[in-house]
Amino acid sequence: MMTTTIKTVGILSPGDMGQAVGQVLHTHGLRVIASLAARSERTKTLAAQAGIVDVGDLPALVREADIILSILVPSEALSAAQFVAQAISETGADLLYVDCNAIAPQTVRQIETIITASGGRFVDASIIGPPPRKPGATRFYASGPSLADFMRLGAFGLEIKPLGDESGQASAIKMCYAALTKGMTALATELLTAAQMLGVASALDQELQASQPFLHEQFKRQLPGMTPKAHRWVGEMEEIAQTFAYVGLTPQILAGAADIYRFVSQTELAQRTPEDPTPAPTAAQVVEILAKHLTQSVT
Amino acid sequence: MMTTTIKTVGILSPGDMGQAVGQVLHTHGLRVIASLAARSERTKTLAAQAGIVDVGDLPALVREADIILSILVPSEALSAAQFVAQAISETGADLLYVDCNAIAPQTVRQIETIITASGGRFVDASIIGPPPRKPGATRFYASGPSLADFMRLGAFGLEIKPLGDESGQASAIKMCYAALTKGMTALATELLTAAQMLGVASALDQELQASQPFLHEQFKRQLPGMTPKAHRWVGEMEEIAQTFAYVGLTPQILAGAADIYRFVSQTELAQRTPEDPTPAPTAAQVVEILAKHLTQSVT
Repeated sequence: MMTTTIKTVGILSPGDMGQAVGQVLHTHGLRVIASLAARSERTKTLAAQAGIVDVGDLPALVREADIILSILVPSEALSAAQFVAQAISETGADLLYVDCNAIAPQTVRQIETIITASGGRFVDASIIGPPPRKPGATRFYASGPSLADFMRLGAFGLEIKPLGDESGQASAIKMCYAALTKGMTALATELLTAAQMLGVASALDQELQASQPFLHEQFKRQLPGMTPKAHRWVGEMEEIAQTFAYVGLTPQILAGAADIYRFVSQTELAQRTPEDPTPAPTAAQVVEILAKHLTQSVT
Repeated sequence: MMTTTIKTVGILSPGDMGQAVGQVLHTHGLRVIASLAARSERTKTLAAQAGIVDVGDLPALVREADIILSILVPSEALSAAQFVAQAISETGADLLYVDCNAIAPQTVRQIETIITASGGRFVDASIIGPPPRKPGATRFYASGPSLADFMRLGAFGLEIKPLGDESGQASAIKMCYAALTKGMTALATELLTAAQMLGVASALDQELQASQPFLHEQFKRQLPGMTPKAHRWVGEMEEIAQTFAYVGLTPQILAGAADIYRFVSQTELAQRTPEDPTPAPTAAQVVEILAKHLTQSVT
């Protein structure tokens, strides 16, 4: 149990989600820091706007932070934990490391072992909802033996739901939830693109509007928002596939969702940044662009 | 073009859907026939209740029918067409063969070749919606050079939407639509079962109720209705996987959906008939039973 007051939270590393989380904590009175030595000017600017202080390298982050929140793309979660563990060993820092990434419970337990072996404390967390820019939309789930330490951030603007003292539970709920939301978006992207390729896009659109109005509306909103994030979701789908395989279920649905996001991420649709001032393509345009890529790869 | 009046429609073969379609046509004044020589007593009783006359063997069906509607599980569509083609060759019957099955456009074109080579005419059709027991809920999509002949059944209680004179289009829209409805149910079955295995079923249920209320309600209705049909849906998911692969998209999502329905069909959940008077298991019970099977197969 942490006996000192929480004063400083490190964000590893402030992308869209991490920056918004940092801003919430900063607004609620905490010092929020990051190690931005190797990051882009865009990231540095966004971090500064969110009130996040750049302390330079990772050992500085580990020395100065009471808690580090790891908020990364899934494929970086394990190696980031290894770097932090090494810095904990070298600095002897008293640190709570909270893995907030969308990774399989079995990956979480590997990271827990790495962090605790270095002398750090560990909490498994996951984030459901968008970057927390308005209250009530975003929930942190958390589990693990040091859960109580992380729960203290609930006093600084984060909504945290405890899931017991076993690491893996917080990630498990995230895997199942993201399977639904991002799995469905992948499925929609695929079947709408297939309809375009097969020449039945307009008939299908009318049928969905008539018999599946809720989903029809949802897909129109989801496809344009998905494309700039597709590259990040590949790894997340693969982590879910591993999670499902671990309990004896087929990994194929989610492996296929990873295929879809990999395909999207290799097109020009993936090149927009969230700050792009030009209008995002509509769902119908997304589908047309994807179908064009398929046609080109066939011919 | 068919010059005679339509008097007799053959249903190949009257299961749940075929029987309801036959009943609609019978109610609207057509003679509806089937070949039930090799079928169960249950099927014969249901057919008689729907006003469908048993003419015995397949050659009799081909001789007496003006139109045959093929309404089968996907895996039987091709071999049924081969039997009918042989009977057309032998009897010289003037027949319109309408394949209404949930099969890939490329499979449809194989069947078209088989039927037209025998001297029969062919229409590609697909059925979206439940067995047509109430008006307005079920639509037939249809395409192919003999489309106009099939459209005449629109005067006998079927809602038919034309999709042009190219076979494959009607099946294409069905593939994309069923990818959505049955693909989503497979995804839901998987992620809810995973949550049960991982010990987060109750937390996920609360999260879904709060942030995905529409889908939460939908899954509660869909899972109990899915289990007796799972064995039929395996082949349908495989046809969709082939359809998507044909246009250059990943087959994995739908292959995984086939895996899920194969798993369900191998449990006691698949053994209920639609006439079973005992209450169907709830969605939560479905998930518990599936998780129990996974646990047993692990130990």
